[in-house]
Amino acid sequence: MSTSIKRANQEAIRRIEEGNAMWVDLRLAREVVPGMDEHTVFHAGPPVAWRNMCGPMRGAIIGASMFEGWARTPDEAIAIAESGKLKFDSSHHHRAIGPMSGIITPSMQVNVVRNERFGIDTCSTLYMGTGKVLRHGAYDETVMAKLRWMNHELAPLLRLALHDAGGIDLMAIAAQALQMGDELHNRNKASNPLLITKLAPHLVKVGERDKVIEALRFIDNAGHFILNMVMAGCKGILDAASGIPGSTIVTTIARNGYQTGIRVSGTGDQWFTAPAPVIKGVFFPGFGPEDANPDMGDSAITETMGLGSLAMAGAPAVVQYVGGTPEFAVETTMNMYEITVAEHKTLKMPTLNFRGTPLGIDIRKVLETGVTPVINTGISCKRAGVGQIGAGLTAVPIECFEKAIEAFAATRGVSVD
Amino acid sequence: MSTSIKRANQEAIRRIEEGNAMWVDLRLAREVVPGMDEHTVFHAGPPVAWRNMCGPMRGAIIGASMFEGWARTPDEAIAIAESGKLKFDSSHHHRAIGPMSGIITPSMQVNVVRNERFGIDTCSTLYMGTGKVLRHGAYDETVMAKLRWMNHELAPLLRLALHDAGGIDLMAIAAQALQMGDELHNRNKASNPLLITKLAPHLVKVGERDKVIEALRFIDNAGHFILNMVMAGCKGILDAASGIPGSTIVTTIARNGYQTGIRVSGTGDQWFTAPAPVIKGVFFPGFGPEDANPDMGDSAITETMGLGSLAMAGAPAVVQYVGGTPEFAVETTMNMYEITVAEHKTLKMPTLNFRGTPLGIDIRKVLETGVTPVINTGISCKRAGVGQIGAGLTAVPIECFEKAIEAFAATRGVSVD
Repeated sequence: MSTSIKRANQEAIRRIEEGNAMWVDLRLAREVVPGMDEHTVFHAGPPVAWRNMCGPMRGAIIGASMFEGWARTPDEAIAIAESGKLKFDSSHHHRAIGPMSGIITPSMQVNVVRNERFGIDTCSTLYMGTGKVLRHGAYDETVMAKLRWMNHELAPLLRLALHDAGGIDLMAIAAQALQMGDELHNRNKASNPLLITKLAPHLVKVGERDKVIEALRFIDNAGHFILNMVMAGCKGILDAASGIPGSTIVTTIARNGYQTGIRVSGTGDQWFTAPAPVIKGVFFPGFGPEDANPDMGDSAITETMGLGSLAMAGAPAVVQYVGGTPEFAVETTMNMYEITVAEHKTLKMPTLNFRGTPLGIDIRKVLETGVTPVINTGISCKRAGVGQIGAGLTAVPIECFEKAIEAFAATRGVSVD
Repeated sequence: MSTSIKRANQEAIRRIEEGNAMWVDLRLAREVVPGMDEHTVFHAGPPVAWRNMCGPMRGAIIGASMFEGWARTPDEAIAIAESGKLKFDSSHHHRAIGPMSGIITPSMQVNVVRNERFGIDTCSTLYMGTGKVLRHGAYDETVMAKLRWMNHELAPLLRLALHDAGGIDLMAIAAQALQMGDELHNRNKASNPLLITKLAPHLVKVGERDKVIEALRFIDNAGHFILNMVMAGCKGILDAASGIPGSTIVTTIARNGYQTGIRVSGTGDQWFTAPAPVIKGVFFPGFGPEDANPDMGDSAITETMGLGSLAMAGAPAVVQYVGGTPEFAVETTMNMYEITVAEHKTLKMPTLNFRGTPLGIDIRKVLETGVTPVINTGISCKRAGVGQIGAGLTAVPIECFEKAIEAFAATRGVSVD
């Protein structure tokens, strides 16, 4: 049996390495996200009911409901959510993805990222910046105003620029940025300016002067604007490797603040979940561990793709944001080689003598070693309405892999070696 | 005596660390470079007469003479140079600097970079890109056309943008770029996009659409556009530390393709020279060591400032351009700590756990250890008119330091301990 698993995993790796990620469009979610109807709310992580949703996810839904006009006040929004009128589902079931709470509703503009090789379009929310933002559950008027500006001003301008550019190759930027100390999850110091450098001439060509200046400044100040497109790119690439019978490669890691879930190629769309863990991190002034929400967000798709914490050795300076030392960053990546089956052909880290990033988390290796994938992540306040309060490190619970291997064995009708 | 040397060197380091580098203006050389009159040609490295100038420096002077209208053909330019009509001098004597041949003539637009703390303005040529360019001695019509466009179109636009920005802080960009794997001499993959990110909103504000697009694309494609401003910044900072009696710190390393020269704080403006060495490097297709000109250019001011090869440990990917391995890059920086007296307070390398770059090359330490400063550099073809043919590594000849210590001892009237 191990031969056929090996072959299945090789096929998964082949598809991942052949995939690409072109940022091609911005569109209204209702136009491009499959299954996005009125009163539909897609969220990060595995499926979760309103009653189990954490504070920041509820906060983001309150904000989104007011943005959509479904509610005028937070109390009205909560009443609507409790009434059962909203249709909730995991974005991962709808070719969509978003960091932290990852809330997507019909009137939101989303990035469209295309895996051209496999014909998969994946959508993601627009990155709002750090601090008080919708994805972390903040919804005061400053947040709502920014959301409206992004939707009605920024997105249409970016769309024109992107069409003028004929799309922007995100994995080419990711490969360059890895050479420049980014890990493409919590450190985007290189990828974001590289995006601006690519985009600027096209923005200038299509936009009004003042709006172009505003857009350039916003993308620069947001710091991680490219993250949401990279996330959609990673998902589109990994989705092409999903559903390969016999493959033990992880194709999704996602958290909703209540549970962490993984999906495995050989078991398709099935989730294997465990309670979302706490995050060991660096907190913004005035906040501490007692304020922290458990792990949340779809951004661990970067780790699933071998970026983020898996590529930390190439990003020693990320420890200034998530904690730890450069030595710890190298150790983390070295540990991740123990649970992966390949090294990426084009995503390489100069600090490890241009070794490829660890690619293809194998649930068997995780269980053999007891080493689980580390995640670099932002920390939300557990109370709705506050926002981001820090950043740090956590790991996927081993329970997810224990459940996965059982289900995988069942698909084979035998015990797993 | 060693106590007073120590104190003098501490003063030099203090001045270097307190200095800054603001890119504040672009002006015609005749308006801002002290001593720049008609038929004046300033060049890289220590002073050198026409008869001793190497092929690429002569090529650049031919191009500059045609650009100025002093000659219509290369033969006319050579005749004028041989006639003694041109006044040659080292740019370093005139608060100016340029990479490779570093030729500056009166009608050229130059960057003005200000050390605000010490009131020193330093000028540098504009970076033309790689390949066939004036600084490497090429002067065909494509080179001349590009030079005219840069002078008459690009520079005035950049000037307006820079005034709108109120100047751009180059050492802030350098500090960031060091965290992103640049060494700020041969690797500017981060610093150049960071410059574009800072500059773009101001360019958009002041420029015509098509010219802004052209400028953004040019700066991006040039790859190292920021290098010439960083060089002027380094010189302005180091010049403030020149002329401190009793200091054994190197304040200039510069080469003219004929000789390599250094200057030392305690001996002021005196040059200590040796024949320019060959460069061990990576050659562009079709070229080899037999085509290579000896070491040339003022860009080793970056090494003098603790950047370039001295900061190579922080820039492992630069070895793809200059040769070697990431391990060699770390070794190089570790060796440079042996010949320097300090570690920079704000220029830090994450790969060495945020250790400061080696700062303040001490001629005594060079002579004690026999380790001389390594230089990352481009390689010119030795024939005039060709241009860049590769990049690589070389070192400052020990002879420069032997001469320097003798002169230094003479200033003290004693032998050096």
